[in-house]
Amino acid sequence: MATTNQYPAKAYGATAPDSGLGPMDITRRGLRDDDVLIDITHCGICHSDLHSARNDWGRTTYPIVPGHEIVGTVAAVGESVTRHKLGDRVAIGCMVDSCMECAHCDADLEQYCQNGGMTGTYNGTDRRDGSPTYGGYSDRIVAREEFVLKVPDSLPMAEAAPLLCAGITTYSPLRTWKIGPGSKVAVAGLGGLGHMGVKLAAAMGAEVTVLSRSESKRGDAEKLGAHAFLNTSDRAAMKAKSGYFDMVLNTIPVRHDVTPYLHLLRIDGVQVLVGVIDMLPEMHSGLLLGRKVLTGSGIGGLAETQEMLDFCAAHNVLPEIETIAMQDVNDAYDRMEASDVKYRFVIDMASLGG
Amino acid sequence: MATTNQYPAKAYGATAPDSGLGPMDITRRGLRDDDVLIDITHCGICHSDLHSARNDWGRTTYPIVPGHEIVGTVAAVGESVTRHKLGDRVAIGCMVDSCMECAHCDADLEQYCQNGGMTGTYNGTDRRDGSPTYGGYSDRIVAREEFVLKVPDSLPMAEAAPLLCAGITTYSPLRTWKIGPGSKVAVAGLGGLGHMGVKLAAAMGAEVTVLSRSESKRGDAEKLGAHAFLNTSDRAAMKAKSGYFDMVLNTIPVRHDVTPYLHLLRIDGVQVLVGVIDMLPEMHSGLLLGRKVLTGSGIGGLAETQEMLDFCAAHNVLPEIETIAMQDVNDAYDRMEASDVKYRFVIDMASLGG
Repeated sequence: MATTNQYPAKAYGATAPDSGLGPMDITRRGLRDDDVLIDITHCGICHSDLHSARNDWGRTTYPIVPGHEIVGTVAAVGESVTRHKLGDRVAIGCMVDSCMECAHCDADLEQYCQNGGMTGTYNGTDRRDGSPTYGGYSDRIVAREEFVLKVPDSLPMAEAAPLLCAGITTYSPLRTWKIGPGSKVAVAGLGGLGHMGVKLAAAMGAEVTVLSRSESKRGDAEKLGAHAFLNTSDRAAMKAKSGYFDMVLNTIPVRHDVTPYLHLLRIDGVQVLVGVIDMLPEMHSGLLLGRKVLTGSGIGGLAETQEMLDFCAAHNVLPEIETIAMQDVNDAYDRMEASDVKYRFVIDMASLGG
Repeated sequence: MATTNQYPAKAYGATAPDSGLGPMDITRRGLRDDDVLIDITHCGICHSDLHSARNDWGRTTYPIVPGHEIVGTVAAVGESVTRHKLGDRVAIGCMVDSCMECAHCDADLEQYCQNGGMTGTYNGTDRRDGSPTYGGYSDRIVAREEFVLKVPDSLPMAEAAPLLCAGITTYSPLRTWKIGPGSKVAVAGLGGLGHMGVKLAAAMGAEVTVLSRSESKRGDAEKLGAHAFLNTSDRAAMKAKSGYFDMVLNTIPVRHDVTPYLHLLRIDGVQVLVGVIDMLPEMHSGLLLGRKVLTGSGIGGLAETQEMLDFCAAHNVLPEIETIAMQDVNDAYDRMEASDVKYRFVIDMASLGG
C-alpha cells in the first residue's frame, strides 16, 4: 500500500472541555490507495459538535476537531481510487469508515456496522492505524473513497453542507416509513433537523404540519413550506388532531414526554425519534441508535379473531388449561395472583347448575 | 324491532371492590332482531377479570359480572339473524358491540372503534339501551350476531375459551408484523398470554425463544414447543443474543424496563407490548391501546445519503443557513444553545486563510 507524504492542515479544535475552540495545526495522513484528499469549502455546525467539544457525553478524546457536515473538492486521490477525480465536488457526513463486510454494511446500513460500529468522522479511531479522526472544521481532510459522496452540480456548496447530517437524519426515516403523496407528517422541533424534515417531507408530497409549543413558530412553519401548524399547548387543537398523522418526526433534542405525540398518530402510525441527543436516556438510545421499534397491541378485530380460531383448529394449537367450578373462582383469583396456574383457568359453567 | 321476553340468568359477580365474587341473579335482554342467545359452557379467567372485579383501575361499575373468554352453544336467535343457528358452537371475546361505521370498524379493527370505542363484554354500556353489560361468568348471554364468533368443530370447548382473549391478543401482533417461517420470536412472560404466544408463533413456523429471569421456566418452555430459552439474568447470554430477534412479544403484566428487550432486536425489529395491564402507565397505554409505533433513527447509510443528496438537488430542497467565519465558531455555539439560528450555521472555510 503506497503512502504519500502527510498533509499539514489548518483546523479549529478544543483541547479541553472548557477550552472553547481555537486554531490548531493538524496533520492529515498520506494517501492510502483508496483515499481521497478533499479541500474543504464549507462545514455545517451540528449540535453534536458542541456537545462533543465540551465532553457533555463523557466520550471525548482531546484534542478534538468537530465537524461532520463537510463539503469540498477533490485535491488528490490514491492509486486505486475510481469513484472520484480531481476537482469533483464531494461531501463527507458523520462516518469515514466501517467494516464493509458485516450484514448491516452489506445492507447499506454502514451507520449500524456490527463490527465495532461506524468510524466517526471526528472523535473516532482509524480502523487501520489506530490514529484519532479529526472532523471538518479544517481546510482539508483525507477519507476512504466509499465514504466520500458526490455533491450534485445544482446544489450550492454552502447549502449542501447541512444535508450531510441534518438532511440525511430526517430523510432516512421518511424513506424507511414510505412517506409520500397522501401521507400526513407532523414535525416536532423546528431546528436544524426539524426544518429539513419539513422541507423534505413536503418535497416527497406529504401534508406537513409543524408542532410547537410556541405560536411564534407559526409564521416560520409557513415560510418553510409546512401546510399547517399545531400549537401543542392548545389542548382542543391537539384533541382535534388525535389519530390524524401517519408519522410524527420528533427532532426535539432534549428529554421530554413523547406521549402527547403518540396520541396524534393513527393506528399503526409511527413516531420516529431523531433528536434526544442531549441526554441519551437508556430507552431512547435503544430505539434511536439501533432503529428498533416499540409498539403495542390490544386484542384483535372480529375477522381476525375468527381467523385465529380457525388457525388454532387447523394447527391444533390449544391453550394449557385447568378447569374449575364457578364456586372456586375466588380461589382461582388468589392462585392467579401467585402465578400458580399453568396457564389459564377455565370455568366449567355446568357447575352453575341447570 | 321485535323484543322477546327477557332471560333470567345465573351468574357470579362482585358487588364491591372487596366483596369477592358470589352468586348473582341477572337478567339478559330479550332478543333484538340481530341478537343471539348463547348457553355458555365455559369461560376463561383473564387477569383483567380480577382487576376489574376489585376496581384496581378505578373504572368499575358495580355489580360486575366478569368474563370475556366465552364459549357456548346457540340457544335462540333474533328474527333477522343469518350468521348463526340453534346448536351452533360459538364464542364471544372482549367486545359485544361497536359502531360498525367508522374507518376503524370498516377496516376490521372494531377494537379501536372511533365512535366511543368498543363496547366491552362486561363493565360496558349497551349502545342501544344504555344498560350495563355483564360478562361470561354466567350460564347464558345475549349479544349482537356480528360479535358472536364460530368455534371450529375440532376445537374442544374448554380449550377454546382462552383463545378469545389470550389467543387473539398474541395472534394479532404476530400477524400484523408478518411472523412466519424463518422469523425469530422471543416471548417475555410465560403466563396465559405468553404461553399462547409461544404456541402460536411456533405454529406459524417461527423459531421461538422464551425469555425469563428464572431458570425454572426452561423446562416449561420446551414443553410448550419453544426452541430455545434465554435467561435474562444471564448477562453473557443476553449479550450473545443482542440484535438477534425479529420480534419480542412482551406479555409481562407489570411495569418494567423494556430496554434490555430492545437490545435483543435486530435493526427494524419490533417489541410489542401486550401485557402491562397492571398499571397502564401513560406511554404504554398510548402504544398498547392505540397500536402506535415508537422508533428511532440515526443518520443513514452511504447509498441512502447519496440518494438524499440527489433528491435534494432534483427537488431543490436546501437548508436555511447562516454562513460564518471559522473564527466565530464559539459565538455560533452560544447562539445555537440559545436557539438563535435559522436554521443551521455553516462555516466558510475560506476564512481559515490559504
